[in-house]
Amino acid sequence: MAGYKRYHKEDAVSYTLGITVTFELLRFKREYVNKVYVHSAMKQGDTMDKLDSICKEDGIPVVYTDKIFNILSQKENCYVIGEFKKFQCCLDNSKPHIVLVNPSNSGNMGTIIRSALGFGLNQMAVIRPAADIFDPKVVRASMGALFSTDFEYFNSFSEYQERTGNRGIYPFMLNAETSLHNLKPEEVFSLVFGNEAKGLPEEFASIGTPVVIPHLKGIDSLNLPVAAGIAMYEATKNRF
Amino acid sequence: MAGYKRYHKEDAVSYTLGITVTFELLRFKREYVNKVYVHSAMKQGDTMDKLDSICKEDGIPVVYTDKIFNILSQKENCYVIGEFKKFQCCLDNSKPHIVLVNPSNSGNMGTIIRSALGFGLNQMAVIRPAADIFDPKVVRASMGALFSTDFEYFNSFSEYQERTGNRGIYPFMLNAETSLHNLKPEEVFSLVFGNEAKGLPEEFASIGTPVVIPHLKGIDSLNLPVAAGIAMYEATKNRF
Repeated sequence: MAGYKRYHKEDAVSYTLGITVTFELLRFKREYVNKVYVHSAMKQGDTMDKLDSICKEDGIPVVYTDKIFNILSQKENCYVIGEFKKFQCCLDNSKPHIVLVNPSNSGNMGTIIRSALGFGLNQMAVIRPAADIFDPKVVRASMGALFSTDFEYFNSFSEYQERTGNRGIYPFMLNAETSLHNLKPEEVFSLVFGNEAKGLPEEFASIGTPVVIPHLKGIDSLNLPVAAGIAMYEATKNRF
Repeated sequence: MAGYKRYHKEDAVSYTLGITVTFELLRFKREYVNKVYVHSAMKQGDTMDKLDSICKEDGIPVVYTDKIFNILSQKENCYVIGEFKKFQCCLDNSKPHIVLVNPSNSGNMGTIIRSALGFGLNQMAVIRPAADIFDPKVVRASMGALFSTDFEYFNSFSEYQERTGNRGIYPFMLNAETSLHNLKPEEVFSLVFGNEAKGLPEEFASIGTPVVIPHLKGIDSLNLPVAAGIAMYEATKNRF
């Protein structure tokens, strides 16, 4: 029965690779946890005691095995893995959203989720085709911020707009006219970011208020999580 | 003679993996280029013609081989590699600097160099122990911005300070009192960032004006390139 497999998008479960992100899982989405796996190299001590006691409290099995680590976690010091059922959540339309249009890189997606939570933006819309938000690489790069984030997938941006109603829409584009320096968003807004290689399709030039982060021509563009971080920082400044 | 080896820090040469970053190398550091390698899967056409003509103009040999690609570039579509002699450069003390204290991740280092160039901050000090700025992973993540950046390594922050004289020093720390929102740097300043896992050592609390990027407690910290990007954006706002 212990035929562990690599993670696939179609699986009903996903995994937290590492102790920190597993603690975040247990803290925010405990009801979805199936099991916690512990590697033989995991040291006994306070951290292990804490993990044991949380799992015991909620009747979560702790399984000692090295096998799943060889399959799921090729690199680094990963001695604890959490297995959780994928969950569904709904965007709160009364709050600001981050909209990722066709994100393709898992690490970037996770990094953006992490920054977003830091700036109080825990509502994430994802427009397909897109990376899988439950990919263990996303979960890990988010440092567990995924477990405090509401997200929904949409088949198109217009589907997103129909479902989420009236709000300030700010697509980030290199050829936009409005500078981020002058951004004064409404109470309820959406910051919209394109694919890491291609940016947003040109049709976004006529949606909402396109915004540019001013920078020199010495670089073609900022890295996506950096650009998103800067945008979120500026857009939420009056909240901190 | 064609015994290609993996890249090592001690090597006198390094490599640009990919066509875009190789063009940046040829544009800004042509005099240091030894050779350009082209993979058999590289398509003929305008891009290849342009590469050929630049190399011919400067007497740079173009070598057709797949071997070096198997060794240096495990993944992705990389059909062109540039080989260049490592170069030395000197910080310009009349300009603002980015100071990376003990950066350990090559990709992060490259991403920061890319953002920095975008914000006109092409002066980078690196405090040892630190990642190797010539690592092909740094070069690639910088998207070639490294070739427009002046950088110097120092053995300690005090060595850096002695050599670079009087300037506004802004260490980024989670427990700082000054908010980035209120940062109004001098004409000549240094933004100082710590290691991705550990941040800056506590001694930086009494150096210059420590600055914090305000964010919620829901995350421990921002990802390093994101934090650095936000800081550079804010510190250079009045220049754009």
